[in-house]
Amino acid sequence: MREILLIGIGKSTSYLIQYLLDKAKDENIHLTLADNDIEGILHAFSSHEACSIESLDIHEEKQRQVLIQKADLVISMLPARFHYIVAKDCLDFKKHLITASYVSPELKEIKEEVKNAGLVFLNEMGLDPGIDHMSAMAIIDGIRAEGGKILLFESFTGGLVAAESDTNLWNYKFTWNPRNVVLAGQGGAAKFIQEGTYKYIPYHKVFRRTEFMEVEGYGMFEAYANRDSLNYREAYGLQDALTLFRGTMRRVGFSKAWNVFVQLGMTDDSYTIENSEGMSYREFINSFLPYSPSDSVELKLRHILKIDQDDSTWGKLVELNLFDPNKKFTLKNATPAQLLQKILEDRWTLGNDEKDMIVMYHKVGYEINGKKKQVDANMVVLGENRMFTAMAKTVGLPIAMAAIHILNGKIHTPGVHIPIHKEVYEPILKELIEYGIHFKEFQVPYLGYNPDSVAS
Amino acid sequence: MREILLIGIGKSTSYLIQYLLDKAKDENIHLTLADNDIEGILHAFSSHEACSIESLDIHEEKQRQVLIQKADLVISMLPARFHYIVAKDCLDFKKHLITASYVSPELKEIKEEVKNAGLVFLNEMGLDPGIDHMSAMAIIDGIRAEGGKILLFESFTGGLVAAESDTNLWNYKFTWNPRNVVLAGQGGAAKFIQEGTYKYIPYHKVFRRTEFMEVEGYGMFEAYANRDSLNYREAYGLQDALTLFRGTMRRVGFSKAWNVFVQLGMTDDSYTIENSEGMSYREFINSFLPYSPSDSVELKLRHILKIDQDDSTWGKLVELNLFDPNKKFTLKNATPAQLLQKILEDRWTLGNDEKDMIVMYHKVGYEINGKKKQVDANMVVLGENRMFTAMAKTVGLPIAMAAIHILNGKIHTPGVHIPIHKEVYEPILKELIEYGIHFKEFQVPYLGYNPDSVAS
Repeated sequence: MREILLIGIGKSTSYLIQYLLDKAKDENIHLTLADNDIEGILHAFSSHEACSIESLDIHEEKQRQVLIQKADLVISMLPARFHYIVAKDCLDFKKHLITASYVSPELKEIKEEVKNAGLVFLNEMGLDPGIDHMSAMAIIDGIRAEGGKILLFESFTGGLVAAESDTNLWNYKFTWNPRNVVLAGQGGAAKFIQEGTYKYIPYHKVFRRTEFMEVEGYGMFEAYANRDSLNYREAYGLQDALTLFRGTMRRVGFSKAWNVFVQLGMTDDSYTIENSEGMSYREFINSFLPYSPSDSVELKLRHILKIDQDDSTWGKLVELNLFDPNKKFTLKNATPAQLLQKILEDRWTLGNDEKDMIVMYHKVGYEINGKKKQVDANMVVLGENRMFTAMAKTVGLPIAMAAIHILNGKIHTPGVHIPIHKEVYEPILKELIEYGIHFKEFQVPYLGYNPDSVAS
Repeated sequence: MREILLIGIGKSTSYLIQYLLDKAKDENIHLTLADNDIEGILHAFSSHEACSIESLDIHEEKQRQVLIQKADLVISMLPARFHYIVAKDCLDFKKHLITASYVSPELKEIKEEVKNAGLVFLNEMGLDPGIDHMSAMAIIDGIRAEGGKILLFESFTGGLVAAESDTNLWNYKFTWNPRNVVLAGQGGAAKFIQEGTYKYIPYHKVFRRTEFMEVEGYGMFEAYANRDSLNYREAYGLQDALTLFRGTMRRVGFSKAWNVFVQLGMTDDSYTIENSEGMSYREFINSFLPYSPSDSVELKLRHILKIDQDDSTWGKLVELNLFDPNKKFTLKNATPAQLLQKILEDRWTLGNDEKDMIVMYHKVGYEINGKKKQVDANMVVLGENRMFTAMAKTVGLPIAMAAIHILNGKIHTPGVHIPIHKEVYEPILKELIEYGIHFKEFQVPYLGYNPDSVAS
């Protein structure tokens, strides 16, 4: 019997748990679910014979260490800041570890010790980061194996809403932490490289510099630049690529409308509005508009942002009750970002039976035998309901599969890793296909600089 | 013989020193000028019989304390961060102190000790802060003395260039720290209050929400919002005012053109451009524009910021050699803001014989006998040359005058102060008139909400 300890039973663990319990018998696994709040765990899980539940405060060292000591492998789905506490214990008690989070600087510092202990600490093992790494490296390694040289790499991911549950003008609902959506893009200019030139976009322009892409059967999407597209340049071996770009996908028109909030300053999280409690949505908007004794909030907003009478952005704003003088905030001393989040949550919360959608899109340009080519690849995954979301599926299944492979010694190279090596991505990408998570690849004309196609 | 110690002999001390030396005989004063770089001090000063020069490293405690002990009054014109070192010594050795800087939190902490020691620590005693406080409080106190209630207070200051030295399309030259000009408005949203409503402008919109004003004989100006207009609400006793706004003045058209830099992200000081050394001005601009294999930097810029062919902003950009592929930076790993500053310094440096200009404008709305009224007041001061600037005059003279008044016991209320009390502003504003620094006051229609003048 092999013991897997899963710490942190949040909303993206449903498929992860289900997968492991489904395999429990065949793989001879017992699973312990530990969280400080065990109320929300599904009966279908807690009543499973291969499953135990433990109430755990992650800061309770003794209790935590007892659980970790009993395990063969630990999966931490806690908020990222707690991973290191778990990682230290895993190192001390010689347990493998999987997370879906970015490799932190602290984790990098112990990488030699992890390696020397023969342990596998596999991080960034969810969707983004996770499936993006695996699918990108599968394509890149494939091109290289044929003698190609990568010239361009662009990668986009979006957590969206499925067409059948798409009931608002933004074509968007929250399927992840709403706060992260409101603050997306903040904290510094977006940086990337395009045809050999470094490019910088300040936050207030990010949502106006979108790129479009079509996914067959699902229509058009747009993507805005992520803050740092150069993060994985070394890891992917793309030091010589001319173009590196990573972005976030939305339905067409989202970014242009979101830009209204950015332009007005409504996504600012750096100061509080003293009189926010009892303030109406209309007053909130008006605090970002010039004073006028006679003009309406509506006209002032249209004028300052030059929104034409027939601009489809307008309906999106109205739909959010942005101009309603009767909708009032109850939050005290809230930041503009917190108040905006409240407005959005009124309308963008996924219903119980509604389905989310994950879209991922890669563009890989390369040179082979003197010719420039490009392969695009995309993936669409639909959720089942608010519990079994596409987000939970794409985050949870790669982790669950990696857990089994590590226990079975199929993934064995010790160290602190992300899933960019064949040993990890080959078996997992293959198995994900069985669960409907697969990429469609197709050749397209090279997107980068083609002297022949430049108009004079 | 009374001893005045002036520490920090920077570019705004010329008039300050000259005033004190001119008064030396009549007022029985000796002046010691202390700085770590005494090379630049004018011979006319150093050779004056009432003047001594001391080389001083402000961190050399012994040397510093010897000088302070010998003085009756200390003036610190050091960068603001060093004032507290001087202030502590002044407290220990019981010496009065004058600075032109904002009252720091540390200084506030020792205010009781300063008061109990019977010392006057007079701060914010230059132009802005300084003359702005004095002139505003003179108007406000005058209105209150007649039974009026202040409804609106707006105040604007600009350090500009005199018409005869105005030789560029921006109608602007650096008369102060260029870095502060490039970073102006950053660090958080501008906050103010207008007709009883709090208003917020994010940085990237500050330069598009300007207010216009005319100064008779000098033409039109514009003003953009300062970050915090509410700083002096308590100090001025304006807790009940409906409108509070402080701004920075420029010639009309400056802000719209400056906004190009803000929009592109060229004023960002938060990251460095790795390949800045050897980069051309043209490449620098291009790094903030989308890639195109065929379109020019010029057209891309016009398109992304919607600059019409006949927009006067364009000439301003061309004048700065912004599109020049042959102008190259020598700065290594510089931030966008540092590179922009370099471009501007090429064109905006005040020549030796060129004259600067200081403009200040107050609007004070009030209610008296049931009627709403408004008095506007403005001041224009011209410099003589690059050494004797209007900036140095308006910063230095109030300090110099205050020094004499403190020594003569005319300004005597002990404590840490800013010049908002009659004891300080009355004699100084009166004497400033003799030096050509005076305000013109005139009645105008009330700017705030007038139900009668609102269009239906």
